[in-house]
Amino acid sequence: MLLLMLDSPSQSDLAFLHGLIGEPGPDPDGVPERYLTEPRDRDHGRAATVLRPRNTGEVARIVAACAERGIGVIPWSGGTGLVGGQVSAEGPLKIVLSLERMTRIRSISPDDDAIVAEAGVVLSDLQAAAASVGRLFPLAMASQGSCCIGGNLATNAGGVQVLRYGNARDLCLGVEAVLADGSIHHGLRLLRKDNTGYDLRHLLIGSEGTLGIITAAVLKLFPCPAEVVTAMLAVPSPQAALHLLQAMRARLDGITAFELMAARGPEFLRGVYPDIADPLEGTPDWRVLVEVGGPLGSELQVRAEAALEAAFDAGLATDGVLASSEAQRARMWWMRETIPEANRKVGAISSHDVSVPLSRIAAFIEAGARAVAALDPHLRINCFGHIGDGNLHYNVFPPEGRSKHDYEAIAAAVKAAIHDCVAEEGGSVSAEHGIGRAKTADLMRYGDPAKLATMRAIKTALDPVGILNPGAVLDTGG
Amino acid sequence: MLLLMLDSPSQSDLAFLHGLIGEPGPDPDGVPERYLTEPRDRDHGRAATVLRPRNTGEVARIVAACAERGIGVIPWSGGTGLVGGQVSAEGPLKIVLSLERMTRIRSISPDDDAIVAEAGVVLSDLQAAAASVGRLFPLAMASQGSCCIGGNLATNAGGVQVLRYGNARDLCLGVEAVLADGSIHHGLRLLRKDNTGYDLRHLLIGSEGTLGIITAAVLKLFPCPAEVVTAMLAVPSPQAALHLLQAMRARLDGITAFELMAARGPEFLRGVYPDIADPLEGTPDWRVLVEVGGPLGSELQVRAEAALEAAFDAGLATDGVLASSEAQRARMWWMRETIPEANRKVGAISSHDVSVPLSRIAAFIEAGARAVAALDPHLRINCFGHIGDGNLHYNVFPPEGRSKHDYEAIAAAVKAAIHDCVAEEGGSVSAEHGIGRAKTADLMRYGDPAKLATMRAIKTALDPVGILNPGAVLDTGG
Repeated sequence: MLLLMLDSPSQSDLAFLHGLIGEPGPDPDGVPERYLTEPRDRDHGRAATVLRPRNTGEVARIVAACAERGIGVIPWSGGTGLVGGQVSAEGPLKIVLSLERMTRIRSISPDDDAIVAEAGVVLSDLQAAAASVGRLFPLAMASQGSCCIGGNLATNAGGVQVLRYGNARDLCLGVEAVLADGSIHHGLRLLRKDNTGYDLRHLLIGSEGTLGIITAAVLKLFPCPAEVVTAMLAVPSPQAALHLLQAMRARLDGITAFELMAARGPEFLRGVYPDIADPLEGTPDWRVLVEVGGPLGSELQVRAEAALEAAFDAGLATDGVLASSEAQRARMWWMRETIPEANRKVGAISSHDVSVPLSRIAAFIEAGARAVAALDPHLRINCFGHIGDGNLHYNVFPPEGRSKHDYEAIAAAVKAAIHDCVAEEGGSVSAEHGIGRAKTADLMRYGDPAKLATMRAIKTALDPVGILNPGAVLDTGG
Repeated sequence: MLLLMLDSPSQSDLAFLHGLIGEPGPDPDGVPERYLTEPRDRDHGRAATVLRPRNTGEVARIVAACAERGIGVIPWSGGTGLVGGQVSAEGPLKIVLSLERMTRIRSISPDDDAIVAEAGVVLSDLQAAAASVGRLFPLAMASQGSCCIGGNLATNAGGVQVLRYGNARDLCLGVEAVLADGSIHHGLRLLRKDNTGYDLRHLLIGSEGTLGIITAAVLKLFPCPAEVVTAMLAVPSPQAALHLLQAMRARLDGITAFELMAARGPEFLRGVYPDIADPLEGTPDWRVLVEVGGPLGSELQVRAEAALEAAFDAGLATDGVLASSEAQRARMWWMRETIPEANRKVGAISSHDVSVPLSRIAAFIEAGARAVAALDPHLRINCFGHIGDGNLHYNVFPPEGRSKHDYEAIAAAVKAAIHDCVAEEGGSVSAEHGIGRAKTADLMRYGDPAKLATMRAIKTALDPVGILNPGAVLDTGG
């Protein structure tokens, strides 16, 4: 187990740490709110100060000093994480180490299909940098205007194009990272193959800042799709949606996104945006948003139409619209991407980011509905997400006119019931958001014991003082 | 550092270990040769015995007993590794733990696009199992008739379809593994997304049996390409080959393979097979083998022809043949895949499995030639490989009529010269073969110090007695 020797920093510690980046000391007005909150406003954190280093050397010096003094460090980039990995309320006061000033694109090479970006580069800026040299950086998600690539990698973010391009870890060729003793791992290699020892990159990616602080990364670029087809289709059931995906795959390479939405999504959207123009008539129980991309000359429109025709004939889709303009395409995506905002307006009792094997999705959706109804038949479920990846956002809401606060007493039971259904189907209670601080107990409950023991051994070996994001991932009491 | 407390097993240890799998004791004829040699016959190993457990429980009991008794364990599956990871000649006698009896396909699910296979399944059997349900398992390499998936994962094998489908690690959704204390990590999850803690799978993959023994894995399946186009093209230079790849990518999804061959390859082939029918005339200095796959209706033939037409116009290719039959296709691939055999017949002074950034390939090839010529202008170089991955097999041979044995005195200098060129270009001295025992010194020389320190810390934490493949990857004196 960890030797926890952390302590809140003293005034002289804080002066010293700020001195490392040429500042006299902490902000006299205290730590700005934005470093202490998270998007769903569930957790409120505390911190001794915020340090905003400008380069990797400064990060290394701060971490080395914190290791020496036993001061906890919370890495922070865009602050958009949904599991509280960036917000600590417990234990001794820690420092927030924000990467927000490290926003350089260090290099970009179309010949290598690679870009080297610092941790604080905002995802949409990274996408734009790739586009400026005629390439695609495919990581994409609703928060892309504020999340940063450092956090994307630390949490192995997913998003809406995983089906084709993979999760964040699959898009990364190498990382530069500051380790718990302040040493710097120089791993910014532009290599597609490199079998020289243990894959430290993959260990750091997804470790949520508990094993090292990623300061820069080499990311893969791809050809930009020259043809794109987007469709919204009513499907008879989630199972039919999966069969539709398989049928389309047999005819089309390059299916980029395949997103499921229950009728509840558009219903909630209409609550916030009453004038929404739904491309589909009559609010079908289930719909999918499909996008396919390909190079020039791949005749995607014709081929997609043929694939959809066959799908209609096979009963895998009952209604559908192909976007015939960029505006129509944007409207379809707006519906999908605005669901989280509508959810927040309604206020969920319990939100879940889960995955199950593709073949178990239908069973899970049914079992989840039964489990929720057993607790209270009036609760509402909004189930949507990246069905092609087996990843559902499965959120439970109060009956119409009621507030989530009225249901706080059963929130834990709802969560446990859903997570037990997930475990029953061989799934994961954190598909793309990570463990953070919100799910450490779930990790203990559902995690493989040998894996947990190994994680603890690795954490102790690489961060013996336990300074890196204490209390995240492994509940170390931080 | 490691606490090395290993000892050769006693007769009673051996009787106990064999008893764990229901056998009276070691083979009285000693350890069969095949467990002590490797394909290039460079290293010859020693071992106390071979244990061939039938299931994961038996593997776990053997490892637990070895941990208790301080006995080194060499995991063995197909024995095809090229860096001596499966052959130990130094230190106390170890046991060979062969996975060859663990050959079950535990399950196969087309709906999940996943197959669960035990470590001893031969790669070509795994490919066949996938094909039997209409799916593709894309890992493919010359040794596929004898290498096993356990070893493929332990070494993160590459092969000829990495360009499209990734390395072995990219094809694995989860592993079951026996850890150094004999505990079993149950990680056989059929999930495309799972962000619950450190990625133990990626740590074990590529660790060459030094952190755990992979006993089974969940592997990704893909749609079988219904249309395939294969071409052999003469290119003016390696740089032109890369531009050709980019130009083709702008017009075609699904480029599966893009293999470079210098004229030396066909020349060596003719030495072994004088009647070889070369699809290209006049033995061009450089050629590429290109393969593209796609679903039904993608009209690949027409589109590939158009792409090649444009390539000829742009001067990126000077001659070329599209395979018009499966026999022609097989002949093209035979040329590529038989080069290693021809190389072995000639006998290399030094063989290199290197990678460099794509943009540095041409510079590396020139620098390598200069460095070799500086040592001896009569040496011959055979440079071929997976140029789309930046991965070259760069092998140096004696002048015609001479033997590699005449050049043993300069072999180390040749190796160092090539590896220095690789390092100069930001490359890797082991692209797809791993470190094994042959490259531990290279890892020390070229490895990032912070990464090496982290690797040692992880090894010590997860295998404190140092029983797992001692002396491989990290030179721990085993």
